[in-house]
Amino acid sequence: MQKYAVAVLGASGYSGAELLRLLAGHSQLEATFLGAHDAAGSLVGEVFPHLAPFAHRRYEPLDALDLSSVQAAFLALPAGMSSTIAPRLVEGGLRVVDLAGDFRLPASAYPEWYGFSHPAPAWLDRAVYGLPELFRKEVAEASLVANPGCYPTPVLLGLAPLLSAGLVEPHAIVVDGKSGISGAGKKPTHRSHFAALDGSVQAYRVGRHQHTPEMEHGLALATGTRATVTFVPHLVPAVRGVVTTAYARLAEGSSLADLREALTQAYAGEPFVRVVPQGEVPDPKRVAGTNVCELGVGVDAHARTAVVMGALDNLGKGAAGQALQNLNLMLGLEETLGLPTVGVYP
Amino acid sequence: MQKYAVAVLGASGYSGAELLRLLAGHSQLEATFLGAHDAAGSLVGEVFPHLAPFAHRRYEPLDALDLSSVQAAFLALPAGMSSTIAPRLVEGGLRVVDLAGDFRLPASAYPEWYGFSHPAPAWLDRAVYGLPELFRKEVAEASLVANPGCYPTPVLLGLAPLLSAGLVEPHAIVVDGKSGISGAGKKPTHRSHFAALDGSVQAYRVGRHQHTPEMEHGLALATGTRATVTFVPHLVPAVRGVVTTAYARLAEGSSLADLREALTQAYAGEPFVRVVPQGEVPDPKRVAGTNVCELGVGVDAHARTAVVMGALDNLGKGAAGQALQNLNLMLGLEETLGLPTVGVYP
Amino acid sequence: MQKYAVAVLGASGYSGAELLRLLAGHSQLEATFLGAHDAAGSLVGEVFPHLAPFAHRRYEPLDALDLSSVQAAFLALPAGMSSTIAPRLVEGGLRVVDLAGDFRLPASAYPEWYGFSHPAPAWLDRAVYGLPELFRKEVAEASLVANPGCYPTPVLLGLAPLLSAGLVEPHAIVVDGKSGISGAGKKPTHRSHFAALDGSVQAYRVGRHQHTPEMEHGLALATGTRATVTFVPHLVPAVRGVVTTAYARLAEGSSLADLREALTQAYAGEPFVRVVPQGEVPDPKRVAGTNVCELGVGVDAHARTAVVMGALDNLGKGAAGQALQNLNLMLGLEETLGLPTVGVYP
Amino acid sequence: MQKYAVAVLGASGYSGAELLRLLAGHSQLEATFLGAHDAAGSLVGEVFPHLAPFAHRRYEPLDALDLSSVQAAFLALPAGMSSTIAPRLVEGGLRVVDLAGDFRLPASAYPEWYGFSHPAPAWLDRAVYGLPELFRKEVAEASLVANPGCYPTPVLLGLAPLLSAGLVEPHAIVVDGKSGISGAGKKPTHRSHFAALDGSVQAYRVGRHQHTPEMEHGLALATGTRATVTFVPHLVPAVRGVVTTAYARLAEGSSLADLREALTQAYAGEPFVRVVPQGEVPDPKRVAGTNVCELGVGVDAHARTAVVMGALDNLGKGAAGQALQNLNLMLGLEETLGLPTVGVYP
Repeated sequence: MQKYAVAVLGASGYSGAELLRLLAGHSQLEATFLGAHDAAGSLVGEVFPHLAPFAHRRYEPLDALDLSSVQAAFLALPAGMSSTIAPRLVEGGLRVVDLAGDFRLPASAYPEWYGFSHPAPAWLDRAVYGLPELFRKEVAEASLVANPGCYPTPVLLGLAPLLSAGLVEPHAIVVDGKSGISGAGKKPTHRSHFAALDGSVQAYRVGRHQHTPEMEHGLALATGTRATVTFVPHLVPAVRGVVTTAYARLAEGSSLADLREALTQAYAGEPFVRVVPQGEVPDPKRVAGTNVCELGVGVDAHARTAVVMGALDNLGKGAAGQALQNLNLMLGLEETLGLPTVGVYP
Repeated sequence: MQKYAVAVLGASGYSGAELLRLLAGHSQLEATFLGAHDAAGSLVGEVFPHLAPFAHRRYEPLDALDLSSVQAAFLALPAGMSSTIAPRLVEGGLRVVDLAGDFRLPASAYPEWYGFSHPAPAWLDRAVYGLPELFRKEVAEASLVANPGCYPTPVLLGLAPLLSAGLVEPHAIVVDGKSGISGAGKKPTHRSHFAALDGSVQAYRVGRHQHTPEMEHGLALATGTRATVTFVPHLVPAVRGVVTTAYARLAEGSSLADLREALTQAYAGEPFVRVVPQGEVPDPKRVAGTNVCELGVGVDAHARTAVVMGALDNLGKGAAGQALQNLNLMLGLEETLGLPTVGVYP
Repeated sequence: MQKYAVAVLGASGYSGAELLRLLAGHSQLEATFLGAHDAAGSLVGEVFPHLAPFAHRRYEPLDALDLSSVQAAFLALPAGMSSTIAPRLVEGGLRVVDLAGDFRLPASAYPEWYGFSHPAPAWLDRAVYGLPELFRKEVAEASLVANPGCYPTPVLLGLAPLLSAGLVEPHAIVVDGKSGISGAGKKPTHRSHFAALDGSVQAYRVGRHQHTPEMEHGLALATGTRATVTFVPHLVPAVRGVVTTAYARLAEGSSLADLREALTQAYAGEPFVRVVPQGEVPDPKRVAGTNVCELGVGVDAHARTAVVMGALDNLGKGAAGQALQNLNLMLGLEETLGLPTVGVYP
Repeated sequence: MQKYAVAVLGASGYSGAELLRLLAGHSQLEATFLGAHDAAGSLVGEVFPHLAPFAHRRYEPLDALDLSSVQAAFLALPAGMSSTIAPRLVEGGLRVVDLAGDFRLPASAYPEWYGFSHPAPAWLDRAVYGLPELFRKEVAEASLVANPGCYPTPVLLGLAPLLSAGLVEPHAIVVDGKSGISGAGKKPTHRSHFAALDGSVQAYRVGRHQHTPEMEHGLALATGTRATVTFVPHLVPAVRGVVTTAYARLAEGSSLADLREALTQAYAGEPFVRVVPQGEVPDPKRVAGTNVCELGVGVDAHARTAVVMGALDNLGKGAAGQALQNLNLMLGLEETLGLPTVGVYP
């Protein structure tokens, strides 16, 4: 059987490398073009020695891509770059999954949260927000998918069914996030220095992280409800893994049993969402290397607060894994192809 | 000059070891009695080889303490044990600092949050809640001090001045905590196994951690306001360090500048509280081994939420350090004696 | 196509769990019996939540295995136990791979290095030492395979070609090993406590580790040369991963180029051995979750010492991965079936 | 009492910061000049927020030092820089401790091992190798001290007494080193990125680390014996801490008891060297933040190899701590002043 040829633009970063790892084990997709900016010209084996199947392949400049040579493309580029590239690819007939935030929000949100005016606002309506468990049908029909952020994914998966069922209040939701350092990319910085991060836990972008409007926008898309979210992410001394803890006011009359029932029903049969047993909590370590998101829920009875927890691998279900899940759907392939579900544990 | 003789009951745990480390460098206190339960009879050097000055000292059974031989005692015992011991020590004339939770709450709270009925409820009124920056005068006059918990310490230091000034609302406060594993003690468990914790972030005791009522009670003591707190702690892959992120609704008309001003004024001149510069955040790594608590504050303008952050070493300002600060006050010594302020960084 | 039914005895430990993870992705083997000792009766999902495909399977007592129901068995049991079980399984017609050390050494070595007299010494001759790259033909014909230890695997792969070619001296070889904690098993101990291991590096079993005679015996098997090895392993703050650094005297006239040439030729075409480029060194992080062993070599010219380095995942090529590679060979399947080669990095 | 005024040149690196931390607690030294290169002009509090006592001090350019304003200087500068600066300082009357390698070797060794020709070879004879336990008298009389490297310190302390007593052979000594990342400095690199180092163990500078000739030279100085050392250091996922494992052939007739006796006698009464009990091994975690070096010894009887282990904090006894110990001696102060001996554990 012939494979689909796929381009990976931004293949020299962590998300790009994870895409290559997954594509190496995919039976119907083949990474035929590996594009990079700074690394163009280098061998993959020099940048990522673990990617043995690609060791002797060379990164090519992004603009060397011949649109007629591939059927699809992943864009794993810095924010602001894919919005200048994606339209041309889609017009050239490619299915495109953008892992950056360039197509996730309404145009009006970009100046404040991303710091740039969107260069192709007309395309925002054509892009589908690629959270398959909530928008599977739309993804399957899309040419351009905005792959969700690592923090919004577990938050939306956890809160959407509860909001839709009216079990929690949409006002004054608080989301506290914790992430390993791989989400910040491969470039060495003072923050990512082992000596600085080991033993450290630090909040960052307090009150101004770009995933805040994405959560609000995603909740509106999924539930029709306008929610207000305060979001503070924290960097913890780990490599992979995101944990989100969302706090929402319990609606009058709703109970822990109701919350659990809503989540369990929403994700029955979903291969990549696992609601943990009552009394247990999600753990990103268990889903390292996979496309699985774990969800859990608890209640603080004395304050009438619902606590909705999620965990995933930020490079898996939080980026490359979910992107591949989206492309599988867009190309009419089996949704689970090439996507691990058993974590490398411990 | 003669030193005060001090007993450490529970000297074979992590908090006990930290007390010994600090006492080894204290010019006016001497640890003359090292009591332990399971470790009684062992050499300190076998249990904690790093405590070289005590290497050849032997742990004694807890009941071997001769009350006439010491002037003060630290109790670093499991919850529920110090409430059966402390009264006798105080009646014997000792100044006592209890590092457990046995004297921190009203009697009515113990069955629900600690799982036992308080054996000496009359003593709860005689105990002073030992957060010196908020209750310095009371501590100095106390015979029995309840040393605060590691999570409540930064939360109370951060929120009390803001609540007192009416800058944030007391309702629906959310506190998200992150802690290293040393707070869970020295006993090996599946949870504390390196292979299980490395790469993991897990919430625990969701909605039922005993520090929840302590935060509410402490805020009431310090500000006269009845606050409602939802608290969820998380275990992160670190050894020392607690970070708390508290979310409270901004009062009408208050601004980030107001919050910063309130905190800065409240702790001007305090040797052990450091308000970090605007735009920066607390980091427990910077205060490892010290008695310092870092505080920071931010605002999510779009949701009108104040974000009040704190960081400390859970064995330092979160346990042994603060206990020593309390005893210094109780004995009329200089408050800062023997307490490091420069962290072992990186 | 029908799958072979396989028993995993000792499926509740880390090696057993890794076997299950690999078997879940194997197209021709099926884990039909999951045996355990202490965990018998428990659900797999309670012990290892990451093993979702087995979540509702229950561990059975070891002696509940019906020999007629399976064609092969992995023994991932404590040292001393498989030698009492394996003979019966082989006589019952099963292909058996023993992950413990029970069949790796001559009978005379067991009292000194393992602390027990071998209960079935006659079987030691029937067992094949399962390092496929060195003994592939013997493994393919074996009914009982002794799966090598995690430290000996990279040491033998690295030194055997050099010794065979006479490029290094067999006398006074020094092997310094470093391992993550997962090699010590799942049981919580003071040594495996996160607070004790983080920031620590400690030698253990200095001069008396049971892998010492295994290295010497393996080198004799592979090269016919009697070598003397001093081996000291160290525990480092990591989960997976073994690194070995072997020091041997350079033979007169041999050069770094000779060493590299010998290794490169020996493993040309081997899917699971990767000789790193000149000037680079092996890194276990790159092979986490895989069955790959990386090898590298250097020379200290001023002292005429060859430095032969190896790295692998102790649960992969150092245990479960290699065991599966052996069973593939024993059953006449493709050797690489179900064995990952691209590490989960970073 | 008046304090000595001390300059720290290179105060914006990790060793410089550790010097400042120690000086902040020193009763007779005061850091009056904080020199830096790139950081000149910055506030200390911006670079190292943990150094609260220096927060409002500003780094000055290195050449702004007025020699008449200080009595001593620490040089914590990159290799090759202090040899151009130190002579002028000594001639200006200062006691100088150089933490780099510029004065540790004979002139002939610099081109090969450090990559530069020594600019002031005449000064090499005037510099004293500052390992106080071996050369205390010389240090006390010196104006210029070459502070030893982090790896040579435990190796020399461990091997010198054994070589002097003829208990081990000087030929073909192998030293395997393991170090945390802080030894590589504060500058972010791909190697120091948390995502790259966590889970990794890598050898580096195989056969060409500059501490190799320092070990050989130091052994010759201390014992009069010409030894040959093969040294390979490894980077492990830790922040502070160096462990060295030295392998030497046991001399005919010598036993483990002899080795232990030699070490124990050599360091009886030494405040900063701790020979661990028989059967135990050194652990750098226990000495984090201190000036202590732990030593241990074992024997591989079957190969007649002595295994001599050492552990220290590379920023403590491996750099800043030892530098301060040296300066205390040079100024005639109590040797232990300002030097912690109880580690921050766990």
